[in-house]
Formats: sequence, structure tokens, C-alpha cells
Amino acid sequence: MFNEFGKVIKITTFGESHGIAMGGIIDGFPAGLTVNFDQIQKELDRRKPGQSKIVTQRKEEDKVEFLSGIFEGKTTGQSIGYIIKNTNQKSKDYEHNLQVFRPSHADYTYFSKYGIRDHRGGGRTSARETANWVVVGALCKQLLPDITFQAFVSSVGDIETKKDIYDLDLSLTENNIVRCPDEEVAEKMIEKITQIKKNGDTIGGIITCVIKNVPVGLGEPIFDKLSSRLAQAMMSINAAKGFEIGSGFKGTRLTGSLHNDIFAEGGKTLTNHSGGIQGGISNGMDIICRVAFKPVATIMKKQDTIDENGNKAEIQGKGRHDPCVVPRAVPIVEALAAMVIADFSLLNKLRKI
Amino acid sequence: MFNEFGKVIKITTFGESHGIAMGGIIDGFPAGLTVNFDQIQKELDRRKPGQSKIVTQRKEEDKVEFLSGIFEGKTTGQSIGYIIKNTNQKSKDYEHNLQVFRPSHADYTYFSKYGIRDHRGGGRTSARETANWVVVGALCKQLLPDITFQAFVSSVGDIETKKDIYDLDLSLTENNIVRCPDEEVAEKMIEKITQIKKNGDTIGGIITCVIKNVPVGLGEPIFDKLSSRLAQAMMSINAAKGFEIGSGFKGTRLTGSLHNDIFAEGGKTLTNHSGGIQGGISNGMDIICRVAFKPVATIMKKQDTIDENGNKAEIQGKGRHDPCVVPRAVPIVEALAAMVIADFSLLNKLRKI
Amino acid sequence: MFNEFGKVIKITTFGESHGIAMGGIIDGFPAGLTVNFDQIQKELDRRKPGQSKIVTQRKEEDKVEFLSGIFEGKTTGQSIGYIIKNTNQKSKDYEHNLQVFRPSHADYTYFSKYGIRDHRGGGRTSARETANWVVVGALCKQLLPDITFQAFVSSVGDIETKKDIYDLDLSLTENNIVRCPDEEVAEKMIEKITQIKKNGDTIGGIITCVIKNVPVGLGEPIFDKLSSRLAQAMMSINAAKGFEIGSGFKGTRLTGSLHNDIFAEGGKTLTNHSGGIQGGISNGMDIICRVAFKPVATIMKKQDTIDENGNKAEIQGKGRHDPCVVPRAVPIVEALAAMVIADFSLLNKLRKI
Amino acid sequence: MFNEFGKVIKITTFGESHGIAMGGIIDGFPAGLTVNFDQIQKELDRRKPGQSKIVTQRKEEDKVEFLSGIFEGKTTGQSIGYIIKNTNQKSKDYEHNLQVFRPSHADYTYFSKYGIRDHRGGGRTSARETANWVVVGALCKQLLPDITFQAFVSSVGDIETKKDIYDLDLSLTENNIVRCPDEEVAEKMIEKITQIKKNGDTIGGIITCVIKNVPVGLGEPIFDKLSSRLAQAMMSINAAKGFEIGSGFKGTRLTGSLHNDIFAEGGKTLTNHSGGIQGGISNGMDIICRVAFKPVATIMKKQDTIDENGNKAEIQGKGRHDPCVVPRAVPIVEALAAMVIADFSLLNKLRKI
Repeated sequence: MFNEFGKVIKITTFGESHGIAMGGIIDGFPAGLTVNFDQIQKELDRRKPGQSKIVTQRKEEDKVEFLSGIFEGKTTGQSIGYIIKNTNQKSKDYEHNLQVFRPSHADYTYFSKYGIRDHRGGGRTSARETANWVVVGALCKQLLPDITFQAFVSSVGDIETKKDIYDLDLSLTENNIVRCPDEEVAEKMIEKITQIKKNGDTIGGIITCVIKNVPVGLGEPIFDKLSSRLAQAMMSINAAKGFEIGSGFKGTRLTGSLHNDIFAEGGKTLTNHSGGIQGGISNGMDIICRVAFKPVATIMKKQDTIDENGNKAEIQGKGRHDPCVVPRAVPIVEALAAMVIADFSLLNKLRKI
Repeated sequence: MFNEFGKVIKITTFGESHGIAMGGIIDGFPAGLTVNFDQIQKELDRRKPGQSKIVTQRKEEDKVEFLSGIFEGKTTGQSIGYIIKNTNQKSKDYEHNLQVFRPSHADYTYFSKYGIRDHRGGGRTSARETANWVVVGALCKQLLPDITFQAFVSSVGDIETKKDIYDLDLSLTENNIVRCPDEEVAEKMIEKITQIKKNGDTIGGIITCVIKNVPVGLGEPIFDKLSSRLAQAMMSINAAKGFEIGSGFKGTRLTGSLHNDIFAEGGKTLTNHSGGIQGGISNGMDIICRVAFKPVATIMKKQDTIDENGNKAEIQGKGRHDPCVVPRAVPIVEALAAMVIADFSLLNKLRKI
Repeated sequence: MFNEFGKVIKITTFGESHGIAMGGIIDGFPAGLTVNFDQIQKELDRRKPGQSKIVTQRKEEDKVEFLSGIFEGKTTGQSIGYIIKNTNQKSKDYEHNLQVFRPSHADYTYFSKYGIRDHRGGGRTSARETANWVVVGALCKQLLPDITFQAFVSSVGDIETKKDIYDLDLSLTENNIVRCPDEEVAEKMIEKITQIKKNGDTIGGIITCVIKNVPVGLGEPIFDKLSSRLAQAMMSINAAKGFEIGSGFKGTRLTGSLHNDIFAEGGKTLTNHSGGIQGGISNGMDIICRVAFKPVATIMKKQDTIDENGNKAEIQGKGRHDPCVVPRAVPIVEALAAMVIADFSLLNKLRKI
Repeated sequence: MFNEFGKVIKITTFGESHGIAMGGIIDGFPAGLTVNFDQIQKELDRRKPGQSKIVTQRKEEDKVEFLSGIFEGKTTGQSIGYIIKNTNQKSKDYEHNLQVFRPSHADYTYFSKYGIRDHRGGGRTSARETANWVVVGALCKQLLPDITFQAFVSSVGDIETKKDIYDLDLSLTENNIVRCPDEEVAEKMIEKITQIKKNGDTIGGIITCVIKNVPVGLGEPIFDKLSSRLAQAMMSINAAKGFEIGSGFKGTRLTGSLHNDIFAEGGKTLTNHSGGIQGGISNGMDIICRVAFKPVATIMKKQDTIDENGNKAEIQGKGRHDPCVVPRAVPIVEALAAMVIADFSLLNKLRKI
């Protein structure tokens, strides 16, 4: 009921970062898709640790193994089980945490909630869970060959691209390790992260996601608006603290006469303050959303904290952590977007007799 | 499946603004609560049209009638059916829309999706639906007598309170018609809305919501984080375009050493950048979130648009509309927050043996 | 979560027999169906009390009012709210029950579970709830014009038709008040019920349901087999104590070589021991199932019982009750079957790319 | 959405009999249970093939591996992932089926539904799936240490025990390979199955399940009655064709005055025709239900059939199959019963304030 997402393509996931394996079940995936396994692995590689100098130096293979639901290279319509083995757990790196709660982590809340502490790398709350989603997102992208999902880093700390989305060449995103298509800004971001890392500190950032060629009509009334479900999905990423669609927070300063998207012929609109969603339903324009990520909580500096008995203690991060989460979060944002869009695409087959 | 919200207290709603009645069913509400009906009506009155000069001048009674699930003043544990009759539909006000799509409304997307057009005031997409939620939220508040839900208007267009939440006296919120507890700013907001209305235009704004005395441990792993569900709920409000929790978008500019909330003794934290949620679970600090609302799409100015055949047309708003949605959205934000918290409170009874 | 049924056409219901109204919400019903309201009322009339001398003599109009989701005679794709007002509650008839538990009723279990007693006619547990389903079933039948749902009474006590289903003319079912198409047997059933009623007693019976022209492929793997969901639905009818599909309990005595349904050309089978379902999925043959109903618990004879304090007491039924539930349950069985089949028909649009 | 079962303890499963592994995820299982792994394996061993001369001679280890959700021997409250590797797939045994549909199997319906054929041992429709359930059921039993689940074989073909349940010593069930506690009858059943097997044929049977020490109050209104959910669960077992609770089909012949269960003091009843469930809710008496299983469809005799093009063909079973499914289905029935009861037990914590 709680480790699941989706209506008619539903995923349920499991796994702790330092357990035997992560994994999941995809239920409701249609039969007949010829699976491109290389493409799935490629997406996992975009997310995996150790891929560049500005991300965590952990080395994980992140190889997905499909256990069911695919036969002779095609989806069968049956539930797709998969696992990603954990090969590089260094639980020792976390032993110093055994008695204390890491500030702004989930240690305290999970211990309070469940009465049990899995101190090894955050247990279930580890961002390693997002590998599970990338598998599903990659399959969903294959189900929607005409739709493109392009996320990129639009800011790192106070370094941000000032360019309009349509002045950016999004095909450049993967050309640099920070995944910002504004190459001048990308360089500054990389410098920033490098500096922050040297300080033993971390920094936040924002990811923008553009989804093109979405048909009109995706999304459902009321609580399953396309915007509501995208928000839920994105806010489920570790460290996400904000979500906006189209004009977002800035749009609150506009008047209706400036904000309204006037129709051109054919149903397109002259502007896209709506971010591709009106009344919760896609209107055929590009869907544009942004996700805010706080700085990673694990820093290499000494911090005050408390232990499990509520007494004062000190903590200092060890091990291999990301100084900034956004570069590796780019494929995660795309994966979640693909899951939401695929789910609603299927649902849309049911709306008229 | 789509007009519903909640896990173990689940609501399902129905109703078009110009149909016979709005209504809903609350399923899973525990037995034994003595219902304070006046309190429910009071919440509905905070939301209802016509309550001040800066909101729509429609006159709706918004009286809720409970049809089941309450016996001799107490909830019975059975599904609670309720309706709110529509008494003031002036469908005529919408006849001029019959052939054209209103810009930045849901007309075009709903027509494309369902192949059917209910032109009377937006049909199912009307913000009148939110009256349904206020009923549920009011019941949920009564289930959680120790928790307070206080939303207020923090900005209208570019008029915003600069005060820290803890420098505001939230008990003042209901003292003015715009529902901003910073009274000096409130006056400017009212002026702003009055001016905007005179121009036949509309304006956006932001609502901040503070939830106090939330126990540690609410929220569920992964996709049902407290933050994820609050985001889904708030983004379901008509005109919502953004959501943030705690430090939100601004927090992306901070370093981890500044952003981390250091524990004080007893599990409280010295700062609250987390906004009361860590790892998706409440940590006992105040939950603080913000919701961005775009300007209302219906303006009294002439706009270009297209008709159902895709041909160019013109449109001009008539009838009685809100120049700014945020004053009336304050009780709606609280209602949704109460629904989410009540649902997770119940769920939390299931987490340990 | 608990007063609901269905996957993509989901109903949620509410109402106590002696409250203001029964009702429900149908969520996910496709747009574009021209609703035949007379047909819906006709189904309600088949179920309603007072229709013949062998059923309860209560007089309820059972008029359904649709509050939303239908515009200009067509479904809009939005949630369909409806109510059926309770016009003939004689709560007084139940006052003698106030302190005691009726044997084999739900009084004791509901009181134990919820700590609250709605003594008026069973409250939520009243079979009046089934009127809600008949509305939904009638709409679902209209969605499936090619499929026929034909239930009939196959036994009352030990009076049963010995004829094979294919030797019965099911169009005769509605010709007699007991709803058995074997007219000779029908007469004996009516006699039996009349006699039983005269004794102040009640009697059980069995309903057989035949569903024709079901396409191959309905039903989903594992726990949502067509047979599983039909079983769940039918066992939800008040007084249902057994369910079987195809050869059912008798089929346990056969060998595989006798029981297997050999394929004829075109995928049809020479026999139909499977009852139209193989591996949980419809195979294109007639679906045939049977539902067992225990005798109605309310009898006009004096019975020993206990009161709410656990002390010995006596009880004697008053009021207007059915001596045998099966004649009025025929349209209920059909309604549930139609709901299940409609839901799975929609779902089947999602199974292949 | 479809390979799942349960409300607040929800399982989702995957796996084909001849794929890499079966497995599942248990979501919502409470934290803090010390897991008895031996007990789980013991239940799997009761179900596994090759355990006696009257069941299939396939040799599968059926070792469950838990991948998550259990830490240092205790459940953590996180989703529990597990797999059971398939070690003894002889897909070759099924190659003769490649072009033809096995009568009364799921081959034809699955191929029609999904357009894809996994001919290896039935793919997803294999009864091997039930191993997944036994794992979950075993965990659920541990969650309910006071409740006992005792299923046994009550008939094989026309050989049935005539003894009343309370005249049987259910502790004897596991003493013989057919799992019937009436030892005299058990011997005849074993003879029967041995004879049937020698003929290359198969035979059906009935399992009775008794659940003791169930608290009053389990089950939810309307469609989630305890009886409805037990029916859904049991009808999901491969080959199940009927379900009854308490007096079941035979109870239809009784009058109310004979069938009603008169209360004794303390809420117990003098008889138990209700089978422990009244109004869909457990009443504290033993829950008694029966499940009918048709004869296994795979026989060693030649049968007429059709191929994938609809042309006439012949088929003859090969490989290692059960001549009668009921002995191995006993632990499966218990597992499903435990899942349903555990789920409702948790839910019951939510019903009163």
C-alpha cells in the first residue's frame, strides 16, 4: 500500500541500501513490448554512483536482473519482477552512526516510527531506492516512443542558467558531468560543487524537466490531476523540497490577463504559463516542471546531534557521499515523469465508450 | 479510482457546479466521534462565496446535509454520505461560453478528453468541488483535537509579508478579509485586489500553512511520504501551480552545514529547514508548507480564443468571479492538510506489532 | 476503502435502511453513454419490496436520483453521484430490538466491532444496500449491450428445478413471482414460501446466473480472476453462504478425463464444466455460477437470545420481512455480475500494446 | 493492481513456473516481529512437490530467500522482498504443447488475452505461484500466535469423511499423506488417488478449513466482508470451483428457525451454521469454510484439442503432475486464510476512536 505507485501500471518496490538486493514488481505493464535491455542499463548508468568526480565515489554495478514477465525478449502482460543486487555495501562506513542520529536524515523519524533502527546507510530511506524507479522509467519510456523526457540541472546553489528553456539546446545536457545544457553555466556549477566538496560540505539545486509530444487529455479529475501526480512522484525523491509546474511560484505575481495562455489555431497556445497542464489535464503543449533539492544532509564536518537516548553527541560524516544530488537526480526525475505519463496514457483508453 | 483521496480515511466526491448537488462519501472514518456540526458549517462559511467585497459575489448557502454514517450525533464507523445542494446556479451566465474555449481553463482539455462539454461553470472542474473537501477536513480536524492547522495568505501578486512565521500572530488571520495575519500587509493586499478587480483582471498569490503539535512518525515510505501526499493534495486545488515544504526552493541555495537542522535534546531541532518532515516522516516540529496559486483565468477583459471547431473567436468573462483565489483558499488548504494528517495518524496505528 | 468495489469502474456506497437516503458514487464510468433511465428504474422495481405476496410487504418507492456525471442524458466521464431516498422507514418496528441481539443477524458483530448500535432495521447491514448496486448494475448492463445477464431461482429449500440450464427457457423467469423459469417447479416454490410465511418462518434457496456472449479474455491474473471477483461480489450479498462456478462442488467427484472441456473448432468447447472461466479468464463460453442463500434470520417466532449486557432475553420478529430472499435477489445477482464484467471489459483495453 | 491481495498487509507477486524465480513483496507488515524462518520453510515443505507418492514427482527445493524488510531477525516495517528460485524447470516436458492448447487449462484464454504464449508449464498460471502465498501466510500466522488455522482434505472424488468437524481430531491431519484426519477414510482416499494415477487420470476433492480463536469483529462492511474476502482468496487457487462458509449450500434447505444460531451467554452461540461470520464480521465462533477443487486438467490420456490456428489436434500429458490437487493445497488454503485474517486484524485497530 505504501511502497507502490501508479494506477494501472503500478510499481511496488523493496530494498535497503545495505541489504542483499533492491528490487520491485511492475504490475499492469502491457504485453507485446520488445524490451531494449541496453537502454534500461544505459539509464541505470546515468544514475549510478562513481560516474564522475562530482558525485559519490561508491562503485556499484547496478545491473538489473529481470526475473519474470518478459519471455523471449517481449513483455508478456504478467507482473515483471526484477532485482538489482547490492555489491558494494560497506556497512562499516556507518558503524560510527550506530548510536547517534544524523541531522536532517531520516534516522530519528524512522526509529521513532518503527522502533527499529537499520543504521546501515539509511536502510530503506537510502536514495539507492531510486535505482528501482529508473528501471521502471526506462521501460515506460519504451512504451511511449514518441514522447521525450528531458530533465536537466537548472541551478546549483546560486549558480543558475538564466536562459529560457527554448533558448537551450537540451541535447547538450549529457555533454557535461553536471548535466546542465548551458555549457558556460555548467562549468561554474562543476567548479561550485568541486569547491563545496573540498570544504566537506554539500549544496542544493534545481532540476527542470521538459516533456514533449504529450497528447492532449492525460490526467484525471480532482486528486489525480497530472500535476498532482507529478508533484507526488517528484516529492518522493530523497531531498526534494519543492515542486512547480509552468509559471509556478513566479506566476503568482502575474495578472490573469498576462498569465492566460491564449489559444492559437489547432488548440496550441501562444504562451505556456500553464506548463502543459490545464485543469489537471495535459493540453498538448510541452509539460514543464521544476523540482527543488535541498543540500545533501551528510557532510564531512563535525555536527552536534543526539543519540538514541536523547543525549548530546557529535557526528562527522564518513564514507562516500554526493556533495550535490542534482546531477545524478536527472535520470530519476525523467524516470518518474515517464512512469506518470505512461500510467495516464493507459488510463486514457478508458475514458470514452 | 480518480475522484478519491486517502488511504484508510478515503473520500470520494462528485458534483458539478451547476448540477443538483455536490457531495461525497467518507469511508473509513472511525466510530465514536461526537460531531460538532456548527464547526463544520463554520468552515464551509469561511470558504463560501459572497463573504466579502474582494471575493466572488455569488450567493451560495453551502449547507451540508449528512445522509448516513452519523447516528444520534456520533460517527458510527460506516461510510458517511453527504451532499451540498447547488442553490444559486445561473447557467445563463455561461451561455456565452457555449461555443468557445476559455483560455487557461479546463474547457479545452476536458472536451478533448471526454468528447463532451459541460459548459455550465466548468462542470466538474469548478472550484466548487473544494466545498466537498472542507466538509471532510472539518471532520478530520475534530478527530485531531490537539493538532492545529493554520493557513494564511502570505502574498498577493508582489505584495508579501516579509515577517518570519514566528513573528506573526496567526490568531489574527481571520481578522481581515484577505486572511493575512500581518495587518499592515493585509491592507495593501486588499487594496491590490480591489484595484485588480476594478480593472476586470485577476491576480495570483501564495498561501502558507503551519501545522502544530503533529506527533513524530506520520508519513509512510517512498511514494506516500508526508511531503508527497501533501504535495498531491495541494496541487489538486484549482489554480495551484507550486508546492514547497520547509526551506523549499530557497533552500536549494544553502549548504548542508547551514541547512541541516541540528538536534536539541528531546528530539526537537534548533532550526526547522526541514519544515517538520525528514525522510518523508514528521519529526515533531511544526510542518510548514507553501502553495502557489496562479491568477484566476476568468477575467472581464476581452481575449482571443478558439471555438470547438478550432476557429478563431473572442471571449469576455461575465458573471461573478473571484479576482484573487487565495483568501477563500485558506480553509481549503487547511482542510486538505487535515485530511492528510488524519489519514496518516490512523495508519500509524499499524506500524509496530 | 471498504464500502467500495471495482477496479476501473469503482463504486462506493453509503446508507442505512432507516437513514435519510441510500446512495453511491460511480467513479470511472466512461463518457458518452446515453442513459436509459427507465431501464434503471425497471431493475430497481424488480428488486423493490412489496412487489408480490411472497416478499416483504414494505412499500418503498426506490426512485433513484442522479446528482452528477450525466448531462443532457449522457454520461460525462465524471463521477456519478446518486441517491435513493428512504421514504418508508418505520423505526418503531425495531424498537423492541433496542436492547437485544437478533440471532444470526449482524447486531452483535457490529456492536462489538464499532461500539455503537444502530438498531433501526440493521443500519448499514440492511439488505436495502443492494438497491445501490442495482443502480450501478443497470448502468453497467447498458455499457454491455451484447452481453446478457440472466439469473433465476433454481431452488427454494428442497424444491429445485432438475432441468439442465439449456433445457430451460430463461425468458420465462419473470413470468412468475418466484423467478424460476421451470414453471411447474415455480408453482411449488411459491406454495412452499407461502406455507413457510404462514408459519412465521423463513427458508433458503439458490440462484443460478448465466452470462452469455462474454468475450474471451476477461479476468486478470491471480487474485483478480474473474471467478475470484464474482465470488467476492456474490458473497457480499446479505445471506449469501456459498458460491460455485461451472461444475462447482459436484465437479470434485469427476475425473479429469470426464471434466475437461474438449475444444471444438473456433475455440468453443464441447462441454462447459469450466463454467466459462479457465485459469481465471473468460473463455467465450457461457459463464454459469450459483449462489447459496441461507434462510432470512428474522422470523416471527419467539427465540432465545441475549441483550447488550450479555444477559438472557427473548425476541420475536415484528414488521415486514421476506420469508425467502431469493426472488428479490435475482436482479441483485445480475447487477453484481454486470458490475464485474463491465469492470473487466474496460480493463481488458489495457492488456496489449 | 492485479497480482496483489490485501488491504493494509498487501502482497504483490510475480513469477512463472519455468522462469528464473518466483517471488513477491509484502507491504505493510508491522515492525518488530521476530521471524521464525524454520517455520516458514516447514510450511513451504508441506506444499512442495515430491513429498509423497500421491503427488507430483517433480523435485523443487522451494527455498525462500528474503531480500529486505528483515534486519537482525526482526521485521523492520519496510517492504519485505523475497524470492524462491526455480531449480528444476524441465521446459522440455512442455515442448509438445507448443502448438496446441491443453483442454481446461489457461493456455487458450491467456493466449487470447495477451497475444503471447508462455508454453513452459503454464507460465504465470502455474500453481507454482502458490508457493509465494505460503511464505506470506507463514509470516501472517506468526503475527497471530493465538489463532489456529487447520485445513484438511474432507473429500477426494466420492470418498468423503462423514464425521462432524468436532468429532475429528485435527491434529491427525499431517499423519497421513492425503491430509485427512479421519484415518480410515484417509486410507481410502490414498487408494483412490493411487488408482486414478495408475489410469493416467486425475480426480477432484474438497478441503475444509477451521480457524479457531478469531476475535469478534474482523471483517468490513459490504464488499470486504470476511466471507467475501475469504471467497476471493480461495477462488484464486488454481482449480478452485466453489466456496462455502458455515452451512453453505446445504443451509439453503433449512428454515430460519432451524438455521439461526441462538446466543448462549457471553456472546457464543449454541450452533454455528453461520460458520463464525455474521453480517460479514467474525462473531468469535470458529470460522469454517470449504473449498471445492476440480480434477487437475493435465491427464496422461490422449485428448482431442485445437492448435493456435484453431485446427484440430491431439494432446497427451507428459511430465510430472499431481493426480489430485487437494493434499498439497491444504497448506495453501491455510496460508490464504492467515493472510485474510491478519489483514483484517490490523484493520480492526482503526475502527473506533
